[in-house]
Amino acid sequence: MRWRELKNQDCSVAKSLSVFGDLWTIMILRDCFLGIKNFDGFAKSLGISRSIISNRLANLVNDGILEKFETSSPAASKQYRLSPKGLSLYPIILSIVKWGDANFYQNIDPPITHIHRTCGHKLSPIFCCEECGKVVDPKEVNALQRRL
Amino acid sequence: MRWRELKNQDCSVAKSLSVFGDLWTIMILRDCFLGIKNFDGFAKSLGISRSIISNRLANLVNDGILEKFETSSPAASKQYRLSPKGLSLYPIILSIVKWGDANFYQNIDPPITHIHRTCGHKLSPIFCCEECGKVVDPKEVNALQRRL
Repeated sequence: MRWRELKNQDCSVAKSLSVFGDLWTIMILRDCFLGIKNFDGFAKSLGISRSIISNRLANLVNDGILEKFETSSPAASKQYRLSPKGLSLYPIILSIVKWGDANFYQNIDPPITHIHRTCGHKLSPIFCCEECGKVVDPKEVNALQRRL
Repeated sequence: MRWRELKNQDCSVAKSLSVFGDLWTIMILRDCFLGIKNFDGFAKSLGISRSIISNRLANLVNDGILEKFETSSPAASKQYRLSPKGLSLYPIILSIVKWGDANFYQNIDPPITHIHRTCGHKLSPIFCCEECGKVVDPKEVNALQRRL
């Protein structure tokens, strides 16, 4: 299997990774959720080649994850924002943040603290079952393959 | 910035991606959560070169995500299982599954149905605030940078 074959796999993980399963794409998405909107902002944040950024932004727009929009300032005419489809990637990004906080910042404050404005508390996101409300434990989940 | 510099960034996402921000690593983790435990199982599932699988498995063991264990059967002597650190990646994998289900399988059943044994229902995982229990909306979260 090669990268370009992923989208043809009958698998939600493989198909999703065909869209964002690239290191720099995920880093750009991180920046989008931190509020970065323009090319120079991504370039300054990531310190990678402009052609990589340009390629990844074009793919994200093409896949409907980012939307280009115009601003009144000509200097900032190329701006990008997350579409609803892009915003729905938030649990993935926030799960990565949480895992990183737990594994790399055990003894010091993590670089970013998330505040949940809804309740005013520091956000500690948990992954729950919508039905029973319990935190999901992988050992309590059965994965059943669809029968063809 | 290059891949090998990611782990030195003061960022939970960058540090995490230095461990698993590789397409085939995530696909191997998917397989681990589906119960695949041995080299031939990964090779059959992924159809990629054995050297890529070998390299990614070694990295995952080295990073404490997978543990090697011995079995009584000599034919299956090289087996791998998720460590507690690896199991804690489940929200990331399941978030990707959920996003893929929503975006690629709108009109047909997704290839895998997850059953939550705790309550017996089909698992629809939601990302909630531990404090108030509400579903997390990225527009309701402030990200505050740590002051140095």
